[in-house]
Amino acid sequence: MARRSTSRRRDAGRASKPVLEQLPWREVRNPFPPVDVLSADQLEHIHNSSLTVLEELGMEVMGTEARRLYREAGADVDDSTMRVRMDRAMVMEQIDKVPSEFTLHSRVPERNITMGGNRIVVAAVSSPPNCSDLDNGRRPGTFEDFRNLVRVAASLNCIHFFAGYPVEPIDLPVLTRHLDCYMTFITDTDRVWRTYALGAERSHDGIIMNRIARGISEEEMIEKPGLITLINTNSPLRLDEPMSQGLIEMAQNGQPVSITPFTLLGAMAPTTLAGALVQQNAEALATIALIQLVRPGSPAVYGGFTSNVDMKSGAPAFGTPEYVKATFAGGQLARRYGIPFRTSNVNASNAVDAQAAYETGMSLWAAFVAHGNFIHHGAGWLEGGLVASFEKMIVDAEMLQGMFETMMPITVNDAEIGIEAMADVGPGGHFFGTQHTLDRYENAFYSPMLSDWRNYESWVEAGSPDAATRANKIWKQQLENFEAPPLDPAIREELEAFVAKRKEEGGVHDN
Amino acid sequence: MARRSTSRRRDAGRASKPVLEQLPWREVRNPFPPVDVLSADQLEHIHNSSLTVLEELGMEVMGTEARRLYREAGADVDDSTMRVRMDRAMVMEQIDKVPSEFTLHSRVPERNITMGGNRIVVAAVSSPPNCSDLDNGRRPGTFEDFRNLVRVAASLNCIHFFAGYPVEPIDLPVLTRHLDCYMTFITDTDRVWRTYALGAERSHDGIIMNRIARGISEEEMIEKPGLITLINTNSPLRLDEPMSQGLIEMAQNGQPVSITPFTLLGAMAPTTLAGALVQQNAEALATIALIQLVRPGSPAVYGGFTSNVDMKSGAPAFGTPEYVKATFAGGQLARRYGIPFRTSNVNASNAVDAQAAYETGMSLWAAFVAHGNFIHHGAGWLEGGLVASFEKMIVDAEMLQGMFETMMPITVNDAEIGIEAMADVGPGGHFFGTQHTLDRYENAFYSPMLSDWRNYESWVEAGSPDAATRANKIWKQQLENFEAPPLDPAIREELEAFVAKRKEEGGVHDN
Repeated sequence: MARRSTSRRRDAGRASKPVLEQLPWREVRNPFPPVDVLSADQLEHIHNSSLTVLEELGMEVMGTEARRLYREAGADVDDSTMRVRMDRAMVMEQIDKVPSEFTLHSRVPERNITMGGNRIVVAAVSSPPNCSDLDNGRRPGTFEDFRNLVRVAASLNCIHFFAGYPVEPIDLPVLTRHLDCYMTFITDTDRVWRTYALGAERSHDGIIMNRIARGISEEEMIEKPGLITLINTNSPLRLDEPMSQGLIEMAQNGQPVSITPFTLLGAMAPTTLAGALVQQNAEALATIALIQLVRPGSPAVYGGFTSNVDMKSGAPAFGTPEYVKATFAGGQLARRYGIPFRTSNVNASNAVDAQAAYETGMSLWAAFVAHGNFIHHGAGWLEGGLVASFEKMIVDAEMLQGMFETMMPITVNDAEIGIEAMADVGPGGHFFGTQHTLDRYENAFYSPMLSDWRNYESWVEAGSPDAATRANKIWKQQLENFEAPPLDPAIREELEAFVAKRKEEGGVHDN
Repeated sequence: MARRSTSRRRDAGRASKPVLEQLPWREVRNPFPPVDVLSADQLEHIHNSSLTVLEELGMEVMGTEARRLYREAGADVDDSTMRVRMDRAMVMEQIDKVPSEFTLHSRVPERNITMGGNRIVVAAVSSPPNCSDLDNGRRPGTFEDFRNLVRVAASLNCIHFFAGYPVEPIDLPVLTRHLDCYMTFITDTDRVWRTYALGAERSHDGIIMNRIARGISEEEMIEKPGLITLINTNSPLRLDEPMSQGLIEMAQNGQPVSITPFTLLGAMAPTTLAGALVQQNAEALATIALIQLVRPGSPAVYGGFTSNVDMKSGAPAFGTPEYVKATFAGGQLARRYGIPFRTSNVNASNAVDAQAAYETGMSLWAAFVAHGNFIHHGAGWLEGGLVASFEKMIVDAEMLQGMFETMMPITVNDAEIGIEAMADVGPGGHFFGTQHTLDRYENAFYSPMLSDWRNYESWVEAGSPDAATRANKIWKQQLENFEAPPLDPAIREELEAFVAKRKEEGGVHDN
């Protein structure tokens, strides 16, 4: 059965290595209807209030070019305070231009991904400053850690793309770091990847490298985007200059931009869900409108990242009831505007333990029930995003696979039902040896990569390995088995030359 | 705010003891629409096929009285093979008599529970042969363990009732064990509890003890049931004699009976979801029909417990994609018949680790999405039901509270939204100190009992306690703080006399 084939090794000469049994790469579609947490009236109340916020309070837009674009569209712009007030008609006119779905093109067409509708694409964790594993503990990320996390993630079929650096490689110089990281995405993976919108140059470099990797022209790049960038507004109600520069660079080139206000209840947003949702929505709409002002019809993603803080310590919390409800509401708002919805797979645990898994489970189910199209931080996120955990990446992959498999339809027909088999087995019998079972058992069920279903005695005999310990073994095996996907040597050379040139120039100059 | 009050200690004199901050006892309602996994055609195909199974194959019904009841209703009964074939019209005529909801009455009316509609009630784990905790490890259950688990569960507001012994107290004599256990449920808790339907006598004793505890007559007991029993068919297609005796005893007395076929794919049921669902449905309908033949209109529950086995070892698996889909489908079938739906909160992990939590998360979300009315094994289940874990009980309580809180509505109005607060705070500011926050922050968010949101450094300083380690501390604290709810001394005396008399008689004689 194709849907459950074991991943094949490319190099038959080393066939003795153990190979991880996992689900194949798959376009995931959510067959269930989305669940509405807000009544129609509540939804409109939030929608209208967020437009009122943009009219009456506006956003502080720190980029000169961004303010110019808003002003040209008729917004009330005060350059001294950088405040931009925009009327609801203008905002909604821009929002109406956003495509309801779009495809991101990989250098390997089989790895193209589409966002929108009932599709689900999952990205690896991105941007933690630290990483951790059971062998070497918690530490600031290096380029070696970055490459290892990229390689482990790329070996997992449930990771559809990279929406950022799985860990920040802080041993690389800031001004040229992006060049080495983009190069790794291209050489070590066949996945779509993200540029960082800290100013225009990092995106510009990414666009050039993506074009070289795919061997396409500027026009083709616009027509068939291959990159995404993620913009966080500086909540409340501020868009900083580097972010707006990156946004403009990407949108000018037709590359999708995902907007996510980071609206922690009681910190960067009101302490109420209704207030935080209004603010999230205001910031998202204003920024998505800006994308359309740069290039009408340019692809955009509506992101929600509303959660609460621990009121005792101020620490952010994730996978909480408030987080789940905000995710449900975020999905509903994005559907209202017909824009693909981004959510996340997050938790605030300090260890790869039960808390990490139950908070992640809350986030993941929220994402699926809310019809998230783009699930960010899909695998590896720990400690509220301060850590990329190698073991957590495997735990998350197992959880993602379980969700993907849950979305596969149930086949109902007489052959599947097998009343004859029931007659053969008879009351009190068992189905182990019946033909109906023998014909199907090999591929009948989802086969987990991490879950351990041995009986207790066998498990103790094996050293009582908990899920994190087993995950440790798996990621190391994946790293050992790693093989880079093929890349045309001429393309590699051209990329290397570009990176060398940009490094000679000193890398980024715009911030 | 009432909905988030900290539980109060009864004895102000020992006020120095730490008190667990938890959500108050609450009638939980599921505000979201149930999700259908089967198309209308698929649902009818399964429904019709299960009726065909009952007509053509029938059930093996080992109890003489049960067969008599089926025969009187027109079923084709063969006493030599014990096979009972029943036509679809007869089955559905009985199914139509089942009430869509019913209330179970506690000796403390505040602890009454109602099953049906969009209500959710949760029971503690029941019937594992073993228990475990981090201090004393895994061991066969004793009466001391039983009492301790009952007391910890009764201290948790998210546990609505006891649907069985949290662990089997194997140091108590089998024939009188139920008397000591029922006594504990009455004296140490204020919750509704379950009788065991292993023959009629255990249920009969339970009914008498429940009447004494509540100080009510036989007629009142029928009118206001206070007990439930759980029947597992011996899948495939067999109902054993003790179970049918227990069922009849309970139904005669108007006490609800919950029917759950235990249909493991590829073991006691076909290896296909469609086949297992047909068999589950056939067994459930036939047995619920029997309840109605005993006493038309007697309350019943439709249970689903379809999951897969590990095809490598034959070990049962829980919280799997197949389990989730079977739960969705089970809920849909129960809704088709208008009967309350029972599901479970289960996993197959050997440790209180990430696997335990992610498999439990799958089961729990499946229960909520499928609109389970009665969530069995809600807290404490580990190792596929072979172990009741003290630590897992606390992990589950945290997960249950998270789900309950997720079901609370979002309030949307201008005061909650607080546009003025946004204006005061301004772009880039923070909401920590604003009046809008100060007015609300104390009770703004769900406050977890187990989740640890300290920063990494503080957590390491505290000894890096993982979730299981923290749970260990909590259950011990709950046990230490335990105080039995008040019980009229005259009632206690009457109960003690009844138990003494029944022990003198040697306890159970019917099996």
